[in-house]
Amino acid sequence: MNENSLLVVSAHAGDFVWRAGGAIAAAADRGERVVVACLSYGERGESASQWLDGKSLDEIKAIRREEATAAATALGAEVVFLDLGDYPLLESDEAVRKLVDVFRDVKPSVVLTHPLSDPYNGDHPAAARMALQARILAQAIGVANSDGTYPTRDEIIGAPPVFFFEPHQSEQSDFKPTLLLDITSAFEKKRAAMECLPAQKHMWSYYTDLAVRRGVQVRRNAGPNLGLPHNTMGEAYVRYYPQVTDVLA
Amino acid sequence: MNENSLLVVSAHAGDFVWRAGGAIAAAADRGERVVVACLSYGERGESASQWLDGKSLDEIKAIRREEATAAATALGAEVVFLDLGDYPLLESDEAVRKLVDVFRDVKPSVVLTHPLSDPYNGDHPAAARMALQARILAQAIGVANSDGTYPTRDEIIGAPPVFFFEPHQSEQSDFKPTLLLDITSAFEKKRAAMECLPAQKHMWSYYTDLAVRRGVQVRRNAGPNLGLPHNTMGEAYVRYYPQVTDVLA
Amino acid sequence: MNENSLLVVSAHAGDFVWRAGGAIAAAADRGERVVVACLSYGERGESASQWLDGKSLDEIKAIRREEATAAATALGAEVVFLDLGDYPLLESDEAVRKLVDVFRDVKPSVVLTHPLSDPYNGDHPAAARMALQARILAQAIGVANSDGTYPTRDEIIGAPPVFFFEPHQSEQSDFKPTLLLDITSAFEKKRAAMECLPAQKHMWSYYTDLAVRRGVQVRRNAGPNLGLPHNTMGEAYVRYYPQVTDVLA
Amino acid sequence: MNENSLLVVSAHAGDFVWRAGGAIAAAADRGERVVVACLSYGERGESASQWLDGKSLDEIKAIRREEATAAATALGAEVVFLDLGDYPLLESDEAVRKLVDVFRDVKPSVVLTHPLSDPYNGDHPAAARMALQARILAQAIGVANSDGTYPTRDEIIGAPPVFFFEPHQSEQSDFKPTLLLDITSAFEKKRAAMECLPAQKHMWSYYTDLAVRRGVQVRRNAGPNLGLPHNTMGEAYVRYYPQVTDVLA
Amino acid sequence: MNENSLLVVSAHAGDFVWRAGGAIAAAADRGERVVVACLSYGERGESASQWLDGKSLDEIKAIRREEATAAATALGAEVVFLDLGDYPLLESDEAVRKLVDVFRDVKPSVVLTHPLSDPYNGDHPAAARMALQARILAQAIGVANSDGTYPTRDEIIGAPPVFFFEPHQSEQSDFKPTLLLDITSAFEKKRAAMECLPAQKHMWSYYTDLAVRRGVQVRRNAGPNLGLPHNTMGEAYVRYYPQVTDVLA
Amino acid sequence: MNENSLLVVSAHAGDFVWRAGGAIAAAADRGERVVVACLSYGERGESASQWLDGKSLDEIKAIRREEATAAATALGAEVVFLDLGDYPLLESDEAVRKLVDVFRDVKPSVVLTHPLSDPYNGDHPAAARMALQARILAQAIGVANSDGTYPTRDEIIGAPPVFFFEPHQSEQSDFKPTLLLDITSAFEKKRAAMECLPAQKHMWSYYTDLAVRRGVQVRRNAGPNLGLPHNTMGEAYVRYYPQVTDVLA
Repeated sequence: MNENSLLVVSAHAGDFVWRAGGAIAAAADRGERVVVACLSYGERGESASQWLDGKSLDEIKAIRREEATAAATALGAEVVFLDLGDYPLLESDEAVRKLVDVFRDVKPSVVLTHPLSDPYNGDHPAAARMALQARILAQAIGVANSDGTYPTRDEIIGAPPVFFFEPHQSEQSDFKPTLLLDITSAFEKKRAAMECLPAQKHMWSYYTDLAVRRGVQVRRNAGPNLGLPHNTMGEAYVRYYPQVTDVLA
Repeated sequence: MNENSLLVVSAHAGDFVWRAGGAIAAAADRGERVVVACLSYGERGESASQWLDGKSLDEIKAIRREEATAAATALGAEVVFLDLGDYPLLESDEAVRKLVDVFRDVKPSVVLTHPLSDPYNGDHPAAARMALQARILAQAIGVANSDGTYPTRDEIIGAPPVFFFEPHQSEQSDFKPTLLLDITSAFEKKRAAMECLPAQKHMWSYYTDLAVRRGVQVRRNAGPNLGLPHNTMGEAYVRYYPQVTDVLA
Repeated sequence: MNENSLLVVSAHAGDFVWRAGGAIAAAADRGERVVVACLSYGERGESASQWLDGKSLDEIKAIRREEATAAATALGAEVVFLDLGDYPLLESDEAVRKLVDVFRDVKPSVVLTHPLSDPYNGDHPAAARMALQARILAQAIGVANSDGTYPTRDEIIGAPPVFFFEPHQSEQSDFKPTLLLDITSAFEKKRAAMECLPAQKHMWSYYTDLAVRRGVQVRRNAGPNLGLPHNTMGEAYVRYYPQVTDVLA
Repeated sequence: MNENSLLVVSAHAGDFVWRAGGAIAAAADRGERVVVACLSYGERGESASQWLDGKSLDEIKAIRREEATAAATALGAEVVFLDLGDYPLLESDEAVRKLVDVFRDVKPSVVLTHPLSDPYNGDHPAAARMALQARILAQAIGVANSDGTYPTRDEIIGAPPVFFFEPHQSEQSDFKPTLLLDITSAFEKKRAAMECLPAQKHMWSYYTDLAVRRGVQVRRNAGPNLGLPHNTMGEAYVRYYPQVTDVLA
Repeated sequence: MNENSLLVVSAHAGDFVWRAGGAIAAAADRGERVVVACLSYGERGESASQWLDGKSLDEIKAIRREEATAAATALGAEVVFLDLGDYPLLESDEAVRKLVDVFRDVKPSVVLTHPLSDPYNGDHPAAARMALQARILAQAIGVANSDGTYPTRDEIIGAPPVFFFEPHQSEQSDFKPTLLLDITSAFEKKRAAMECLPAQKHMWSYYTDLAVRRGVQVRRNAGPNLGLPHNTMGEAYVRYYPQVTDVLA
Repeated sequence: MNENSLLVVSAHAGDFVWRAGGAIAAAADRGERVVVACLSYGERGESASQWLDGKSLDEIKAIRREEATAAATALGAEVVFLDLGDYPLLESDEAVRKLVDVFRDVKPSVVLTHPLSDPYNGDHPAAARMALQARILAQAIGVANSDGTYPTRDEIIGAPPVFFFEPHQSEQSDFKPTLLLDITSAFEKKRAAMECLPAQKHMWSYYTDLAVRRGVQVRRNAGPNLGLPHNTMGEAYVRYYPQVTDVLA
């Protein structure tokens, strides 16, 4: 087991699959612990077909929970559901504190979440703001856990890098990728996870095409010596804090 | 000998020392070939004390050339002088073509140059624009060398990543670092190279202090597990093209 | 009766007159239903003369309500008052839900509101944020009306375009017009509506001058063939979502 | 014959096909005159396969000219070649003056060109800068034609709107679409034009996929009442000057 | 006693010392009243060493209060503590109303606070947003004091200029200085105030070095005639509203 | 005679009147030397009515020169004409060197010029770029005068602040004022200077209205204690380099 761990903060039950499935599968394949924190099930805003089928709120939440669990499993990840409600996903001190607990449990070496701007969906930036806030609070020894106890020195976290995954309409959300991730070897698992979400079958080809397009960009930006194959698949990310390294590359 | 190589495009003779000396020394220490292309000697705009001493233009150019050569040697780098003139450094097709030759000779795996904005010095952005243009042209098999011959397939270059090094007044030049380089082990050589430039002795402590300040930021952004020492020294860079990788970190 | 409808979300009772009166009158003249949702009366922050006259809070609210109703009538619009309070106009889930009801009632083909930035008045961006949030929620079949009932398929709305109208100090609010509306034929009604607000008489000429200035820009940007008259009057807007069309013009 | 006319300023011979083929075919279908001004053949920078085949510069230019002519014909457009050279496309007063002549000949009601930023290709912004400069000069009665004669009042142009078409890596070029064009009915002709460019066969599916993706965005932003079909195809544009209209929609 | 007054809104107990100590001491030296409003003690987020020492929350608050009071005294300023809690500093209507009272008491001719962006600390922007909101509300005669009484005409404030002081990582917080303050003569008092904060002894040299660096920039931007000494010390600020003046300088 | 001096770099003969006439008159009234450097007469691009009247190029240049001289005199300023040609105003090393001479002659304590962006007129940014370049070169003792002689230590200039004056369409040119100048007492002279330009009579009222509008903003941003009159007139500027001061106000 790799000592690194990946925490993914997702506003709705399906977001982590479409947008970060490749990164998740790759991390799991390397032996990292991966935890997906679903803040809501997307029960109101992203389940139109089920509402049209006459399902009740509780039924819809159960369906979405089951699907997201299956998809996470297909990717090799654990999933926790905070059930904060969607449309709107309301920001609150309580919700942030629950996330602080998750951060202290996972001690992530890398954090993934939504970008801070999305004119088509207010829940996505709300999730990102809470994730960023929780990441800061979880580092402070003077900030109590949600049960009121104080953390020990070993229980607080460091300052992990944060990456924003791709929103639906990238340019409208001011999403200018600063990192292109080669997910060629992980794509098969990402596709399997997408197929765990049958209600959004039309998205399967959409996000496969997107992976091809980002793969073309991986190759265009890969520099001279890499010899990447034509079927390279990619995911795009924005790094929020500066990269720290001792080798420029 | 490491097969990687680093190309640094510097507007004036001293720029590469203050701004990228750590990266250069570290690359040389890893066994990479490092070539610094000095577009001018900084003979008019950055040699005020020599002008006040009554030196002639040719004397000043000779002094600056000697100093820059010594500094490059201290860092473990080669240096080529294009002698294009400074204040102003005029952009021209001919100058770009000479740079294309340099790119095809060095075949850099990484390129360093000035950022594209600097309200205090027009030569710096001009150098950056020519470096970026030459990098693109050097990739094209249909673009001739400056002697009129066409390159073979092996002579054209790939698409190396480009990093902008730090301008004098970072915020005024819209320089928001996206990469913080740990230069702790290379700093001793950077200091030695600075000391090859005796006319700017007041800069030695200024750039040492800056390395300390960037070092504090290296530690602040380094994440949980690195245990960096208190004397960490740093240099700041902006990555111009998206990073390509298969591991998020 | 034209089947289109226009919804204007205004932070205070007078805002819609000064900033969008031309667009409102023009839409009403075309036979569209126009509904102005006044989130507050501007009773605390924009009624200084009445406070200095010793009026009570309730008296001021009544005066402003009466004036805004008269102005809306002059423009050909309905007006609804949500009475959420001003200075500050507090954002809340309840306020957004009331706006969702308004959206589902009006089913707007176009939405007008304040821009998202205004360093001189926090109520304006707050109104915009709530309007944008309500517009998204009103599209979702899983989001209940404020009385707890769920909408039918016919009761949810589409995704109408949103335009921001002009703030008081355009440049300071990062308001870069992307659409200049010719309001020449509607200006007489806009002027009549302005004159329904006697306490701000000094604004009548200010906003008439602004219409002249924006009219000059209408003519400057109108392209070759339009032959617009010298007395062209204009209003400036920023389009928030991309325009969709099948003819470039 | 529609009295409107469309002028497309393209840096290289193929650019107008991939990026604006739908807009061109649609305008031609409406009976507008469409003229494509190709500033170069893309003979050095975008003809790698022909160079590898051992073709000479003149042969390559002839091939590209023939292909571009065929593609323009398939779209219903005329094409003029300015043969200014590529890689680099050098900006000059003479080149701008030739473009002024083209503007005064075509008297465009709409202008299409490249966006002003493209970190992967300096020729594209150079073409855009010259097109914008020529558009301004062509409006001035005191600016002579390239043969030294002065224009009459009828020969100068108005101020046509300008749209930037999509660059290869949209986000890296700060290309945030402000207009999504429905090209569904024109797509068949765009595909036929693409197939006139056999050396770039791998681009056919890439740009077909892009049209699908932009088509999804057309539908997402189209508002409530349009009932667009699932196979909607799109092209993305950025409007450079404010839109002028008398109806908000 | 100078009739001007300075209000500094600080998220945590130490912020005003490191970031604005020079401006505070200089204003006090000119005979202005200076009031620092500390919104919290920084008891949870900026007191790690005391938590590690096993201190209780109340003990830590008392220590920080004492230190901040000593530092304010060293600078010649009064200090008020609002004790709103930190990590997170929660925004609320009640907190803003308390700040309105402070604004109306101090009637500041200048306001200093944190910038609106800081990816490393959410409390800083929260403090800035509340300060800006309170500044607007305090100008309105219809906005009651926190005890429910209404202000008289003399009790409301004007529209004082606002300056943001420097965040810890300036570029990451999009902090581009628009004003460089010469604090050479005030620096001795700033240093004395820093030394009132013994737990952060490592910051003393860090902020002394920063004052040197900003001092270099003071000299670089000071224009032709000023003859500033080599030991010039500086602080950097961003002006939030446009400067008003009748002399360009 | 005040020892300060003001240098205004204007692309065309009339620009300095409309955009900076107030600042010029105020400086002259304070006893400062004011020099306007007109880079062209605006003979091609801003003299349409004279072209339509059938005047020759030389006649138009003479008319514009006479008008600009009269306007400068009305403001109390000297004027020098560089006659570089307009539409386009071509940037060149020679033109910059002539400006260097002007800078060294005037030794300005303040510089005014156009902003760097103007989508409606390429000559304005070209003038600004040359002014900024010349200002830098004029500071360097190693940069020769245009006659080939080298300057003495007393002949080089310092680093004067630069202010951009207002373009025709402020928002489209990304012109966000950072300084509002009270020109109430200077306005009468500005009006007299405008009336020296009879061919643009329609601009007299346009720029008078603009002065009123900027005057309203002067009062809105003037802070608490100034008691500015209702007829305050203003001009808007953007400061290019950070302000240096020892008092925040």
